[in-house]
Order: sequence, then structure tokens, then C-alpha cells
Amino acid sequence: MTTTAPAPSAPDVVQAGPLGVAVLGYSFMGKAHSNAWRNVNAFHPSPQVAQKVLVGRDAGHVKEAAQQYGWEESLTDWRQVLDRDDIHIVDICTPGHLHAEIAIAALDAGKHVIVEKPLANTLAEAELMVAAAQRAQARGVQSMVGFNYRRVPALALAKKLISEGRLGEVRQVRVSYLQDWLADADAPMTWRLRQQTAGSGALGDLASHAADQVRYLCGSPIESLTGTVNTFVKTRTGPDGPEEVTVDDAAWATLHLASGAVASLEVSRFATGRKNSLEIEIYGSAGSLSFNLERLNELQFFDATEHAATQGFRTIPVTEPEHPYLEAWWPAGHILGWDSTFTNQAADFLTAIRTGTAPSPSFEDGLEVQKVLAAIETSAAQSGAAVVL
Amino acid sequence: MTTTAPAPSAPDVVQAGPLGVAVLGYSFMGKAHSNAWRNVNAFHPSPQVAQKVLVGRDAGHVKEAAQQYGWEESLTDWRQVLDRDDIHIVDICTPGHLHAEIAIAALDAGKHVIVEKPLANTLAEAELMVAAAQRAQARGVQSMVGFNYRRVPALALAKKLISEGRLGEVRQVRVSYLQDWLADADAPMTWRLRQQTAGSGALGDLASHAADQVRYLCGSPIESLTGTVNTFVKTRTGPDGPEEVTVDDAAWATLHLASGAVASLEVSRFATGRKNSLEIEIYGSAGSLSFNLERLNELQFFDATEHAATQGFRTIPVTEPEHPYLEAWWPAGHILGWDSTFTNQAADFLTAIRTGTAPSPSFEDGLEVQKVLAAIETSAAQSGAAVVL
Amino acid sequence: MTTTAPAPSAPDVVQAGPLGVAVLGYSFMGKAHSNAWRNVNAFHPSPQVAQKVLVGRDAGHVKEAAQQYGWEESLTDWRQVLDRDDIHIVDICTPGHLHAEIAIAALDAGKHVIVEKPLANTLAEAELMVAAAQRAQARGVQSMVGFNYRRVPALALAKKLISEGRLGEVRQVRVSYLQDWLADADAPMTWRLRQQTAGSGALGDLASHAADQVRYLCGSPIESLTGTVNTFVKTRTGPDGPEEVTVDDAAWATLHLASGAVASLEVSRFATGRKNSLEIEIYGSAGSLSFNLERLNELQFFDATEHAATQGFRTIPVTEPEHPYLEAWWPAGHILGWDSTFTNQAADFLTAIRTGTAPSPSFEDGLEVQKVLAAIETSAAQSGAAVVL
Amino acid sequence: MTTTAPAPSAPDVVQAGPLGVAVLGYSFMGKAHSNAWRNVNAFHPSPQVAQKVLVGRDAGHVKEAAQQYGWEESLTDWRQVLDRDDIHIVDICTPGHLHAEIAIAALDAGKHVIVEKPLANTLAEAELMVAAAQRAQARGVQSMVGFNYRRVPALALAKKLISEGRLGEVRQVRVSYLQDWLADADAPMTWRLRQQTAGSGALGDLASHAADQVRYLCGSPIESLTGTVNTFVKTRTGPDGPEEVTVDDAAWATLHLASGAVASLEVSRFATGRKNSLEIEIYGSAGSLSFNLERLNELQFFDATEHAATQGFRTIPVTEPEHPYLEAWWPAGHILGWDSTFTNQAADFLTAIRTGTAPSPSFEDGLEVQKVLAAIETSAAQSGAAVVL
Repeated sequence: MTTTAPAPSAPDVVQAGPLGVAVLGYSFMGKAHSNAWRNVNAFHPSPQVAQKVLVGRDAGHVKEAAQQYGWEESLTDWRQVLDRDDIHIVDICTPGHLHAEIAIAALDAGKHVIVEKPLANTLAEAELMVAAAQRAQARGVQSMVGFNYRRVPALALAKKLISEGRLGEVRQVRVSYLQDWLADADAPMTWRLRQQTAGSGALGDLASHAADQVRYLCGSPIESLTGTVNTFVKTRTGPDGPEEVTVDDAAWATLHLASGAVASLEVSRFATGRKNSLEIEIYGSAGSLSFNLERLNELQFFDATEHAATQGFRTIPVTEPEHPYLEAWWPAGHILGWDSTFTNQAADFLTAIRTGTAPSPSFEDGLEVQKVLAAIETSAAQSGAAVVL
Repeated sequence: MTTTAPAPSAPDVVQAGPLGVAVLGYSFMGKAHSNAWRNVNAFHPSPQVAQKVLVGRDAGHVKEAAQQYGWEESLTDWRQVLDRDDIHIVDICTPGHLHAEIAIAALDAGKHVIVEKPLANTLAEAELMVAAAQRAQARGVQSMVGFNYRRVPALALAKKLISEGRLGEVRQVRVSYLQDWLADADAPMTWRLRQQTAGSGALGDLASHAADQVRYLCGSPIESLTGTVNTFVKTRTGPDGPEEVTVDDAAWATLHLASGAVASLEVSRFATGRKNSLEIEIYGSAGSLSFNLERLNELQFFDATEHAATQGFRTIPVTEPEHPYLEAWWPAGHILGWDSTFTNQAADFLTAIRTGTAPSPSFEDGLEVQKVLAAIETSAAQSGAAVVL
Repeated sequence: MTTTAPAPSAPDVVQAGPLGVAVLGYSFMGKAHSNAWRNVNAFHPSPQVAQKVLVGRDAGHVKEAAQQYGWEESLTDWRQVLDRDDIHIVDICTPGHLHAEIAIAALDAGKHVIVEKPLANTLAEAELMVAAAQRAQARGVQSMVGFNYRRVPALALAKKLISEGRLGEVRQVRVSYLQDWLADADAPMTWRLRQQTAGSGALGDLASHAADQVRYLCGSPIESLTGTVNTFVKTRTGPDGPEEVTVDDAAWATLHLASGAVASLEVSRFATGRKNSLEIEIYGSAGSLSFNLERLNELQFFDATEHAATQGFRTIPVTEPEHPYLEAWWPAGHILGWDSTFTNQAADFLTAIRTGTAPSPSFEDGLEVQKVLAAIETSAAQSGAAVVL
Repeated sequence: MTTTAPAPSAPDVVQAGPLGVAVLGYSFMGKAHSNAWRNVNAFHPSPQVAQKVLVGRDAGHVKEAAQQYGWEESLTDWRQVLDRDDIHIVDICTPGHLHAEIAIAALDAGKHVIVEKPLANTLAEAELMVAAAQRAQARGVQSMVGFNYRRVPALALAKKLISEGRLGEVRQVRVSYLQDWLADADAPMTWRLRQQTAGSGALGDLASHAADQVRYLCGSPIESLTGTVNTFVKTRTGPDGPEEVTVDDAAWATLHLASGAVASLEVSRFATGRKNSLEIEIYGSAGSLSFNLERLNELQFFDATEHAATQGFRTIPVTEPEHPYLEAWWPAGHILGWDSTFTNQAADFLTAIRTGTAPSPSFEDGLEVQKVLAAIETSAAQSGAAVVL
């Protein structure tokens, strides 16, 4: 396919005005991504964008959403946006089983593509997407997978401190992502609890973020792991009566990194009282870090090179002009919301397009995370025996 | 003026399309208010708005800001917006000494008006503004002073819990607003440190929010107070050499409320390490509350009616659909930024316009806060002796 | 043996005066246990004790320690105390490889016995100790293993809340015990890092407490587990040059309980910045708990049966007369130190002796914990494959 | 009296064996001080003590308490201990109105004296006590007032950091001491709520500690203040029906220090949910500190000389050998209880006796605190007008 079509020029090279954006999907993620495109130019000195089209299956609903979220128009067929010259960026917020088809077509049509995480529902799809991204990259067409928590300023600061050596050798990592929206055993069956529609449960939804952070922050590949999964409530009431839950409610893994570090990972939708608790602890020979998404404007840092009498975990309020992304926002001391991570992500993607550099995290990064999730399932299926990636 | 002019109909009554908005001022507060108008319709089911005009004194700068913040056009003369039929709301973010003139003219011209806090630089101006607001209100023209922290969901929840009697009789209140941007004694002289331009220091800037919260949450007038002010660094380097600092760096007061409650108030720009720490503690006979703006998505609540063995301050993550304003935003567990308070404020103002009800806080509320600040200065000038309001 | 020897009467039955105590060992644990015996009668209404003998191998050092810690005399041969009529309680704080021999001899001699955790260095020894304890129990002679954290008031409260059903069905448990005293790779070799002297590393030292808490709080046996161990610094400098570290620095496990609950366990001596951080989180269908030994006077409790708008983890200051053990200590609000757990333990042991009831945790409990530790090592040795207990 | 009696030699000079101690009073403070004397030699390398006599008015009760707390004997007449050669230290835990008479007699009799805070109920008494202490000091007889919170390791560390200049110039101090044991309006009348027996309410009980910490940590005299007091519940039920509460329930003050620093002080017994919350915040030009007695093993420190990107309040776990007093206790990471402050205090007093140096805080310090409390009452009585000390 890519060999026959004359490669379209990268849109950022030829286009003069703003970059036209289409978002596919208008529910939770569609709303969050729309918010990012609506606001990115108000904060970041990145290329101008135009909110061209919102795409969704239900004509009435998507029209209403388009109005609400600031889009010029709405469409029901995503293929239409691939033919339009005024669309330069395709932002895919559809259910996961549609990611591969749309992303590959869009990239091949010369559109820069962002795909919400997780990259795909199967490894096979993810590999095709990576191939498409590599073809596109050769033509200056960019792609990115939406692990938006890389754009939490506190986690960007964490990455910076680790890179600067402030933690010394990283040895032990603890990452957990705990929610509680399934803790009620009487909550009804939904498509999210069926393996065939959702792929997996907490694993794909939560562990994908967790595994991406381990890879991102440690900068070292995951070589092997042991995994466990569990379904606490095995039957729920569906439209036709009791129905088996076929995805995991929670998952656990111990990851061995190439660097020698060991990471524990735990995710759950049954952690009563935890609403959106992505917690990350990183212990190194010279210092440590701790983070919780429920207080995403803060980073805990322990500097072991301090005098012993004044050592302690310090709570850095990551709201100062010296911190990543912060200069774009408000004066010192004014906290950002969860949604700001998507705005920062959009800005970085736009900058990558302008400068012609490959954005990060790439589809390859998305694929690597999928491999980790698959390995956890494989290990769990064989009673926890280690799986080499 | 108001007696002679035939009262214009309230714009919301006659206008069919969106409400046109003009914001006056394009620095920090102009940016924050612009953000609110740009986003309010994407979240809240309030009347539609159109971002018509951004007004500022420097033509080049305001044009650039207008583009960045999503305005259709920019102007340099605020009087022009009063004549336009497509402007229904005037949002005043100018320096304080211009508030009175603009607000009164806009209200008399039939525009709904929001004024950033503090309401005015002098009590005399504030009283004229209240009179204009009352005249306007009689014609269905609404006004509001921008104590945006009333729209922090956690503080709205606090108000609700107090109103429901969950604290019993409120007895003791502690409110402090601490920042540290002047802690460096070598920071240069600015207009904010001159009494003639800034009116006051921490008092007008920080104590105004603090005093408004005491009034709002307790629902009881402040009857008398004792006050102290201090300037820690008395001389700073200005453009022409050393210059006296003529405003307060910090202020303290003990307030007696009509209800019998006593509140302590402390504000400072010298509290090293505190970036934007508005802390509020309220102690009642049946329970207590605690809040910190640096963690604005949380409210601490102590329920003294619980069994003694399980009593404790609970940290409520104010991010759930059951909480004020939250249904408009994101699913459970996703925190809001500081800027969301302005968006909530805009939504409430729009709803008040649509329903023809007086918004809160009113200009009267703004005036009452000014009286508290003036009383603190008076008491301080007489060595702390109590002043009756 | 028990059939031939005329069973000595249980000392508490015949003795009229105080119960005489001998502590074996005078280093860290000997100091902590001495402290408990010196203070127990000052706080708790338990039987009177007399601090008779402190036993240690070095005559000079043990004499000095005996004076310092309040003992009447010191001895170097633990067998001597078994012959004395004025010794009713033998408290074993020696290195682990001596536990079995001493404990069995003491029990058979009719002495009530407390053994510091872990119960023994091998499963075989632990099983012999359990047999001896059962023989002794039949004669009214009591025994106990020193998992002192069961006597942290906050954890006793946790146990009570779980037993009362305040958490509903317990599903997910997270327990970690993190310290950092080996984080320095240049720290020298010690006997604690040699398998033959220490048995294991973090596993025996830290995971024993962690596993005991899982069993204690959940009240359900551990049926199977997968485990991982790791040694971060594989060589350290010993007296004769570089030497291999033969114990684990850290360990991880996922435990399946008979109840259906799943627990994750993580222990480390490399968690830079964590000094004594035993953290326990328990998630149930109706509520959750969270605890950290570094703030041992607090318990976090989330009540999911509360109205959604006021739900949140509450920090219970476990310092009130309504809390376990607290009435014995100070008025409300005065926190206890780590050492108080031993004093509470001594009081409970004395009460068990007086009332003739079996103290808890028993040697059987100690044995069960040993089995968990052994299973973690076994699983780790077979690449994480599950081990059934 | 002191002029006629031949000055007895200081007991520490002549006595060979342990220093004999008598404690006067056996309720809350008597128990806490007894605990200190019983344990001081087990931890601290200070002179040996012997727990000689516990003195109380009720013969039966004091005998029982003496047994429980480890005293050799009990007496009902405090004068008897002054005649005994085996008593070298008199520790006064009686109600405040007896402090002066006993302390002066004991000092004149050549006994080293500790007096619980507050030093006395009246300024006149306090001044007489200071005179007696000065006379005694000239003879090598030591005295001390029991502001035990100076011996909280975290506050000793705070003092050290301030002395080393880590905070730069101290400008602003916030101290509050909040409890809630009177929050129930139906709690009955007690002697603590009558002015004639208790002297004052929260002022003497709580503000004394708060004022001492301001003086201690800042190292600068309080020159003037404005004060407010309030009684929230003005009538309570006494033995003979409704009775007026004649002491303060809460108090507020703003203190001007000679150094130019300003401190706010707030104390209350009505702060629902605060059990023993002595909070201290100190803001300087180069750093800040924050402390809460409910977490007395922690000190918060903000170092403003750090790079801006990694600044933040760090939580120092004050449990390490590098911290004041900690070497005497347990290995790293093991927290101390509230009672340890008295043990540390006893150790320091013993060391002062041995070395012949004047202990701190002295009776003069106690007197200065009394002056502050009196000035708050005076200012409050004149509507908050400033009082110069």
C-alpha cells in the first residue's frame, strides 16, 4: 500500500495556516482530547490548531458534542476526514478494537496520528500499527500513543531528576494503580467486563499506564516478569441474567529490568476508597521519589546525599516556573487539573510536528507495553512462572 | 444618570443568541477569566457565550492576547464595549483603581458586570458601586464580585455541610493565606509595594479572600476586630535607588462574629515555602473542617457524632459526582485545577442571568470585605485596640 | 518426656508473690524486652513481675546491661534459670538458632516462655517448638511468639474493625516493610548477610512481621503464593576481602488466602528514605484500612457505607481511651512510642498466665509464618511458580 | 530565711551513691514524672537516681501509686522530704498554687528542684521563686521549670537548625495549641473552669507551652503583644446547679519580638478533633520549619537555598542517631512516645546537677512566660490594645 501511493508531503511542511484536527470519539476521552485542542494555543507557544471535525457514530449525539466542545463540524464516517486537505492531525479516541484500522489508514493518508492508550487490543494489531508508523515517519508523518501521564509535570520532573543522576542507581520500583468503581458486587455487567469486547480488565486499563511509567522513568527494558490476575466478583447481573465476568478485576506482577532493577506492579478496580490512585515509588542508591496521581501537583523526593540530620522526603509543589510545562500555565502556586496533561501532550505533539522530530511515546512504546500486559497474562495462566519478554 | 436614562431591558431577556462577553484586562486575571469564558460551555449546561472582545491599553499586546485566548477582536477603549448591542457581559480585570468607574458605567449601560476582587481601592468607591448594582438589579441587570474561591468545590461542599448543621454551632475559625514571593529581601521595589498604587499589600490581595471565606462559610457578620500589620522589609531598591515600602507585608486579626464565633486571620507574603496556601479551619460543636488551597481537591472533615473509636479527620477527595460542580467535569477521581474555579464562577453567573436571580457574592459582599480590611488597618494604627464594624 | 516427669504445677497457680522474669539476650531486643518488664506494672493492671535475671554470654557486658535495665542480677548460663523457683517466665531474645533448644527446655521445665520472632531458623526446629508448647499448654504453661506489632493499638483497632465487619468482605491486602540500612553499597559484610548465620535477609527479618499481620488481620490461612527474592548488592567487603552476600536484600510475594482474598507482600532493606515503614492496606467490600508503622499512633479508615459526598479516608488518632490498650497509658492525645508494643505484649502475656488462657500469637502462629517464608524461597527458586502451603 | 540558715552543701557534691528523688503529686504529671525517673538510667548515661519517695495528700492512694510507679515509699507531708539526707531532688507536680511555697522551701533546704509548668499562679509568686532559685544557684543547687516540649527531639533539632542559621532571619512565627476536651457544652463544671482554683484556662495550660516555644526557638524576648480571650460556653452545670465559667476557653495573641519577628499564638480547648495539637511554624529568610505534637517524631523543614526545582517541605523522621537524644533510645526508625520528653528532661537535669551548670529552662524562663500570659489577659481586658512587657 505504501509503495504504490505517492507519498503525500508531510502536512506541516506545506500547510501555511493552522493545523486542522479531527478527533474520533466523543465520550470521556473525546471530551478530554477536545479540551486539549481547544486550549493548547492559549497556553503553549506551539503551532496553531483549528478544531475542524469531531467524528462519532451517532449523528445527533456527535453534533451536540461538537458544539459543546468547540468543533466546527461533526461527521459520522471517519474515512471522510482522511480525504480532506484541511485535516492534518487525526486523534483516535475510539474503542480499542478500531485503533489499528483507523490509525494505519490515517498514517498512510499522510495524517499525523495520536492514538489513545492502550495502543491496540492484540499484539498482532499493535505490530501492524508500528510498521505503519515507521513508514509514515520516513515521510515526516508523526505518530504517538497517548500515555498522557508522561505529561504530568511532577512525573516529567521525576524523569529529569532520574536522568540527572539524583537517584543514583535505581534499584527498586513500586507502582500501583488503584480504583474502586467495581467494589460494589451488585454493580451490573457491562461490556468492560467481557473479555471479547474489553480485551482485559484492570490490566489493559490501568496496568498499561503503570507499565509505561516503569519503562519511561527507569529508561530500561523489562526483561522478564511473573504475574498474577484475579477476578473477585465472578458473576454479575447482565441483561439476560447472571453472567460470568471474563476479565481481571486486579493484577499483580514483579518485573525484572535490564538494569538490574526490580519493580512491583499492582492494579485494581476493587480498592475501596482509592479513586484514581496511580502511585509510583522509585528507590535508588542516592535518592528516592514518590508520586500519587490523586495529588498530581506534588512530587516527593528524598535526597540521600543530604546531611543525615536533615534528610527526609520533601514534598515539592510542582507549580513553579522552574518545573516542566509550568511556565505555560499560571503563576507560582496555582495547581493544575488532571486535564492539563492532555493539553501538554497536544503541545508536545504539535512541536514534534513542527520540528519534524519523532514524538514520544511512540507506537513502539505502545507495543512494548502491550507485550508486558500479555506476559502478565501468560505468567498468570501458568501459575506465576516467569515469562521472558 | 440612572434616574434620567430610560432603563434598558435586561439583555438576557431580549437576546436570542449567545451572550456576548467583553473582558477588560489581559494579564494574570485577564488570562484566567478568558480561560473561563472559553471553556464554560464545554462543561456547564449554562447559557451560551460568545468571546467577543478583549480590552487592554496596549493595542499590540491586547491584540496578541486576544488571539491567544480565543477572542474575536480586541479594543483599547473600554467605553466602546458599552455601546455595543452584542456585548451583554462586562468582566472587569483591570487594576483596582479603575473598578468603580467602569463598573458603574457598564451597569448603567445595562451590562451584566463581574468585577475582580477586591471590589475597589476605597470604601467610598465601593459604596458607589453597590448603589449602581442595586439600581441595575432593579432592572434585571446582574453584578458579582469575583471571590472565585467560593467556587472551589471543596469549599462549596464545606458551605453545604455547615448549612446542614454537620458542624453544629461554629465557634472557632482559623484562616490564613500565606505566600512567599517577597521573602527575598533583595527583590526590587514594584508598584505593588507602594501604597498609592496598590492601596495595601497582603491585606487587599490575600486578606480579602480570607475575610470573604469567613463571612461566606460562617454566614454571620463580623462585628468587631483587633488588627496588626507589619512590614518586614522596610526599604527596597527602586528605579531611583532605595525606596520605602509603604504597604503591609503581613497582617493579623482576631474577628468577633455576630454568632459568637471568633476567627483568627493571618496573611503574609513572607511565609517561605508557602506558595498559595489559603488554609481554613472551622471548629464547631458537632464537627470540624479543614481546607488548604494547595490541595484544593480535598476537604478534611471531622464528625464528632461518630463513635469515639473511629473518629478522625477524613480527607474527602472532592472529585465525585456527588460533589458541587463535579458532575460537569470528569469521571470520579480526576482532580481539577485552580483555573476551574473561574469556569464554575462564570457558569453560576450565566445561570443567574438566565434565571434573573441575584448572583453571589454581590457588590454588597465586596463592600463588607472592604470594611473588614479597613477596620484591620484602623485597629493596627491604634495599637490593636478593637474596632467595631 | 512429659509422661515421665511429674508435671510441675503451673507457676501462676502456686506462686503468691510476683512472677519472676528472666530475659535471655541484652542487645536490641533484650533492651526492648527489659523495658517492657520494667514498665508493665506501672501501666497495666496485670500480675506483678520481678525483674530477676538478665542472661548473656559476656559476663561483663551482661552485668552492666542488667544494672542499666533494672535487673536484680545477671547470669551467663541460661540453663541456671531453669532450675530456679523464683523464675516463672523465660523471655528469649537470643539469636534465632538458639531459640528451639532454649524454648523447649524452658517449657519442659515448667517456665512460661516468650520467644522473639521469627520463631526459629528452620521449619524442623519450629515444629519441635510447637510440640513442646502443646505439651506445656496441657499443664497450664503458656508460650507466645513475639510478633509485637499485634500490640500496636492501631493494628489492634484494625483487627477489631475487621472482626466487626466494618470492612465487609476483605478482598485485597497490600503489605510492605521497607527499610534502607543496606542502601549504601559500600557498607561492610556482616553476619546478617550470610545465609548460614542469618538464615535469610529481609525475608526472616521483615517479611515475618508482614506475613503475621496478613494472617492476623485477615483471619484466614494463606493457601498458596508466588515469590521472588533479589540481592541488589551481591558482594561486600568482609574481614578477608570481597565476600558474596548470601541472603536476600528484598523479597516479593503474592499470597492467596483461603477466604479468596489476595495479598501482595514486599520487603526491602534498600528502600532509600524508608526507615521502619511497615505499611498495611486492606480493601474490603464495605471499607478499607491503611497503616504505617512510622506513624504507629494513627489508623486510616475508609467507610464505604457513608454518604458518598462525605466519604474519605479518615486519620484516626489512636490515642483515646476508647482504643485498645490506651486506657493504661496517658490521657487523650498523647502518642505512644514503638517500645510500648512490648509493654502491651508483656501485659497480655501476664494476663494469659493469670487466667490460664493460651496467649496469642502462639508457636503455631510462628510456625505458620515460617512456612510462608519457606514457600516464598521455594517459589523464587523455581522462577516464581506457585507453591501450595 | 536564706540569710540565717547556713547554706547546705549542694547534694551532688557530697553524695556518693545515686541521687535520691522525691516526686510530689501522683496524678497525670506525677505518673509522667515517675515514668521518667524509673527509666532515665536505662537510656541515658546520666547520674544514677533512686526513686525514693512519692508524696501525696491521700495516704491510701499515694501508697498504691508509689507501688505502681516504682517508688520505695510514700508520704503525705512534703515537708518531711526536705529533712531527709537521702533526697537530693524534689520534683513538684502539685497544683499550681502550691508551687511557690514548696519550691522555695526545697531550694532553701538545698534540694535541686524541678517544677511543673506553669511556674506559678501569680507573678508575685513566680518572682519569689526566681529569687530563691538565684540564691540556690549560688550554692550549686539547681532548679528548672518543666517545659518538657523543649526535650522533644524534633524541637531540639529545630532549635539547632535555627541556631545554625538554616532559617536565616526569622520573621514570622505561628504557634497554636488546640485541644477539644471542652467542646461538649454539656460537660460539667470542674475546678479547672473556676478562676480562683485554676488561675486561667487555656492560657495557663496551653499558652504557657506555646509562649515558651516562641521564646526558646526564636531566642529573642517578646516586647509587646495584643491579646484576646474568649469563653464559648459561659455556664456549666456544677454540683449546685448552673455555674459561671470564669476562665478562658480560648485565647489569641500577636507577639512582637525584639528581633523584629512577629508571632501569632492561638490556644483552645474547643477545637473539635484536635487532641493535642501543638503546631509551630517558623518562617525565615532562608528557610522554614513546621511541627505538630501529634506527630512529634517528625519535623518539616523547607530549605530556600536549594535549587528552586527541588524545593519543598521535607518531613524529617527525627528518629536517627544524628538527632538530639536519639542515640540513647532505639535504632533508626523507631518512634518515641510523648512520655520520652520527660525522660530526656530528667537526663538533662541530672547532667546539669553533675556538671554544676544551670539547667534550662530556668525559673526566670518560667517567670517570663507568666509575664506573657498576664499581658495577654491585660490586653484582652482593654479591648486588645497593645501591652508592652
